[in-house]
Amino acid sequence: MAESEIDRLVQLLAKLPGLGPRSARRAALHLIKKRETLLHPLADALTRAADTVHPCSECGNLDDRDPCGVCSDPRRDRSVICVVEEVADLWALERGAVYTGLYHVLGGTLSAIDGVGPEDLNIEGLVRRASDEAVTEVILATNATVDGQTTAHYITDRLAGSGVKTSRLARGVPVGGELDYLDDGTLAAALKARREM
Amino acid sequence: MAESEIDRLVQLLAKLPGLGPRSARRAALHLIKKRETLLHPLADALTRAADTVHPCSECGNLDDRDPCGVCSDPRRDRSVICVVEEVADLWALERGAVYTGLYHVLGGTLSAIDGVGPEDLNIEGLVRRASDEAVTEVILATNATVDGQTTAHYITDRLAGSGVKTSRLARGVPVGGELDYLDDGTLAAALKARREM
Repeated sequence: MAESEIDRLVQLLAKLPGLGPRSARRAALHLIKKRETLLHPLADALTRAADTVHPCSECGNLDDRDPCGVCSDPRRDRSVICVVEEVADLWALERGAVYTGLYHVLGGTLSAIDGVGPEDLNIEGLVRRASDEAVTEVILATNATVDGQTTAHYITDRLAGSGVKTSRLARGVPVGGELDYLDDGTLAAALKARREM
Repeated sequence: MAESEIDRLVQLLAKLPGLGPRSARRAALHLIKKRETLLHPLADALTRAADTVHPCSECGNLDDRDPCGVCSDPRRDRSVICVVEEVADLWALERGAVYTGLYHVLGGTLSAIDGVGPEDLNIEGLVRRASDEAVTEVILATNATVDGQTTAHYITDRLAGSGVKTSRLARGVPVGGELDYLDDGTLAAALKARREM
């Protein structure tokens, strides 16, 4: 029997992260049921995103304009650049609604095992941007993993002598976190970096 | 700030069952990354599904042809009709690859609480199909829930006197199931319907 359109739709949906074969089938049936309110709009949104969404030539964020919404926002503080691994990390910081500076998306981390070197990441772009006189601080917000920290140290070395201050996010107990559930490394870091009340 | 195309895509993806806001964001970024291999094909598949996939006028299955692949398959046994609540149940039985007859999709169950009456389900179509001389048995494969069983009994009454045999799926211990984890109702049903070794 020839593969039907709905089989093909299920197979493609199952390739999305977070959707297994079962939830892909449920999603396909849900889409067919909501033909006007969900299926058509989603098909349109995908087509438009494919045509219009591109990495920002400044910071690497994904947006339908270039420079992106953050880079082109006149209210953002242009003296600080926050370096993140992926666009998802930039979004997470934006949801926090605390940071008002600019971003720089590396597109990953240095990784000896995966063979990712400095030339595979958007590091030259960062060095160029940091050389702008207006920039005074680069915040290294890579993940607190071995690769993330290796990358942060590499970038700190690359920016040494540029006159730009480099900083990293604080380590400690997550807000709402219970000590009993935290790993030893986090506890040790939180203890070491303790603050006076 | 105007809503960007990628925000809109995330919002639509988050409406799929099984995807929350977080996994919708991951899915959107994954799609943009796999522009050629996933984003374009998925947009095409959705558009084609919206245009071509419709309920089968015979059984209610969803397919891009009418009658559907099952109804138009000459190898299927046309003397048996298996009645299911939703298309997902039909797919589940097809994956089992044991049943070789035809199907009938009701589109839900009778439900006093939700105000679903017989006229809201595809029951007249079933009665009409069951009156065909070739049909000898109707298997009621509605869910083993109160509403599913109420619906099965209603259909049995409607088909009484038509000369068609009605049956329902066996109740018992699921294959691979452990007694300790089963509810009392299933255990009681399995005990009552016990078979000689």
